[in-house]
Amino acid sequence: MKKEILRFLRETEGYVSGQQLCDHLGVSRTAVWKVIQKLMEEGYQIEAVRNKGYRLTESPDILGEAELSSIRKTRWLGSSIYFYQEIDSTNTQAKRLAEEGAPHGSVVVAEVQTGGRGRRGRNWVSAGGSGIWFSLLLRPEILPDQASMLTLVAAMAVTKAIRRVTSLDAMIKWPNDVVLEGKKVCGILTELSAQIDFVNHIIVGIGINVRRQEFPPELEKVATALEQERQLHVDRASLLGKVLEEFEFYYEKYLCTLDVSLFREEYQELLVNYGRQIQVLDPSGAYEGVARGINERGELLVACDRGLRAVNSGEVSVRGIYGYT
Amino acid sequence: MKKEILRFLRETEGYVSGQQLCDHLGVSRTAVWKVIQKLMEEGYQIEAVRNKGYRLTESPDILGEAELSSIRKTRWLGSSIYFYQEIDSTNTQAKRLAEEGAPHGSVVVAEVQTGGRGRRGRNWVSAGGSGIWFSLLLRPEILPDQASMLTLVAAMAVTKAIRRVTSLDAMIKWPNDVVLEGKKVCGILTELSAQIDFVNHIIVGIGINVRRQEFPPELEKVATALEQERQLHVDRASLLGKVLEEFEFYYEKYLCTLDVSLFREEYQELLVNYGRQIQVLDPSGAYEGVARGINERGELLVACDRGLRAVNSGEVSVRGIYGYT
Repeated sequence: MKKEILRFLRETEGYVSGQQLCDHLGVSRTAVWKVIQKLMEEGYQIEAVRNKGYRLTESPDILGEAELSSIRKTRWLGSSIYFYQEIDSTNTQAKRLAEEGAPHGSVVVAEVQTGGRGRRGRNWVSAGGSGIWFSLLLRPEILPDQASMLTLVAAMAVTKAIRRVTSLDAMIKWPNDVVLEGKKVCGILTELSAQIDFVNHIIVGIGINVRRQEFPPELEKVATALEQERQLHVDRASLLGKVLEEFEFYYEKYLCTLDVSLFREEYQELLVNYGRQIQVLDPSGAYEGVARGINERGELLVACDRGLRAVNSGEVSVRGIYGYT
Repeated sequence: MKKEILRFLRETEGYVSGQQLCDHLGVSRTAVWKVIQKLMEEGYQIEAVRNKGYRLTESPDILGEAELSSIRKTRWLGSSIYFYQEIDSTNTQAKRLAEEGAPHGSVVVAEVQTGGRGRRGRNWVSAGGSGIWFSLLLRPEILPDQASMLTLVAAMAVTKAIRRVTSLDAMIKWPNDVVLEGKKVCGILTELSAQIDFVNHIIVGIGINVRRQEFPPELEKVATALEQERQLHVDRASLLGKVLEEFEFYYEKYLCTLDVSLFREEYQELLVNYGRQIQVLDPSGAYEGVARGINERGELLVACDRGLRAVNSGEVSVRGIYGYT
């Protein structure tokens, strides 16, 4: 009931009378009052005025299930939300939930990750209250080798959402980072569980640095947070809600064609590497070239000595040589 | 200590004196006697003769960790064995253990699977005592799209092991079945957990039907068991031990070249589809052709109207039209 009341308060201009809430939910005034009390204990500022009713004036900076459900505007993504105050890693937890049968579109969120992971087993710094650490559980009917494009869907979604909510000039660093002024503000870790020709599930893990946190020295030069770049306050729940909306939007475009052709141009406009000299760390030898955008399969096109090459994220790493790493 | 004593008894011709066991293990005679007692309670027949010592005359039909460890001849595969009297699915359990950090080469075995799985979420019938249900946990440094060839490694290993232990004419039905007289006696389910360009782990699940079990009517015509085909008794632990040996052998060949070229010819000799008319159930339309073996990537080569096509297990199903399904 908490999330229904929260949603009702949020969607109503001005005051909501206790009677309206009772009618809407089919419960007693006492029941409504108890929930209002509980919300206030959690940090929601709710004005209660005699003969007028209740009005939500401020929400706390929390990512709980009721908060997220009450602001959710998606059709299916996030219809199940699993929130944890502390978890080892939202990706690992999402995998566990997937094995137990959690549905397509489930979202796993944690305030603190004690063992947040990056690519290839690297750590991901994720202290409490400083960011948004979450994972999306997807069960698309695609072939395993089509899964990696979901990293591009996620990068699009996060970049668009940051731009809409904060007006910061977020850009995509292909394939799995979002950057601000060349510094990483978001990382994406897509993990696949598959049989030979069948996807069991895909977990898209997303970490967005929101508040300034103490990064280890080696990260200080390459990592940043949204609020570090300019004087602004970012409401984490609103930003997460917006990311889910954008993800749903681009995911459905992806499903139409099973490639990125329907948002390829939009993606390229946000591609920080575009037109720049980059270095491709190919296992068979590093080489340099100029990034010329992406192809329909989401591969990075690199103009180099040997002509135009399509770089598969499965084969190489890419390092910008002008400021980004 | 149980597995050391068992191994010692097994590897010794004739009698092993109590003193030898004490010296070998550095424990007292009483301690040795207690373990011998325990083994006898579990069904091991151990002769104890005064002034001679102990001799193992018969092993019970069990797949426990001590039994398997004592007969293991592999170098690394099965160095950790997880045995369960009953589990939902050995593949699912292997995934859980993998997430908890179980090492490369772990083997998960169960007497009964309550939710055994086949490809694409199908069921796998796996009653207690009637077969060998197990999963191998592997952590190779390969790219995700090289993982599907491990199904071929497993099919090779099972077919060879069955032939060595029983002299039955087991054959491979590409890509993931082993058949006897055209009927399925073993199924393989390879599952991958991966990042874009990094394999977290691979689980190779193998189910071998050993004793006749009650199959559902729709399976009666297409499934069989080793002991159903001829009057013979198969020791499950020995067969499992042999499968592990053969798997290790072909797995290492696979790792040398990261394809199946080093055992391609051997594989083709065991391929039941070879030279036969088959039907390829391609999503874009079924077609018929003649199986001409496999290529180095483990794809089935099919000669059809449009020439020779390489059929990727990721794209099609194959159904023999003369007797096999």
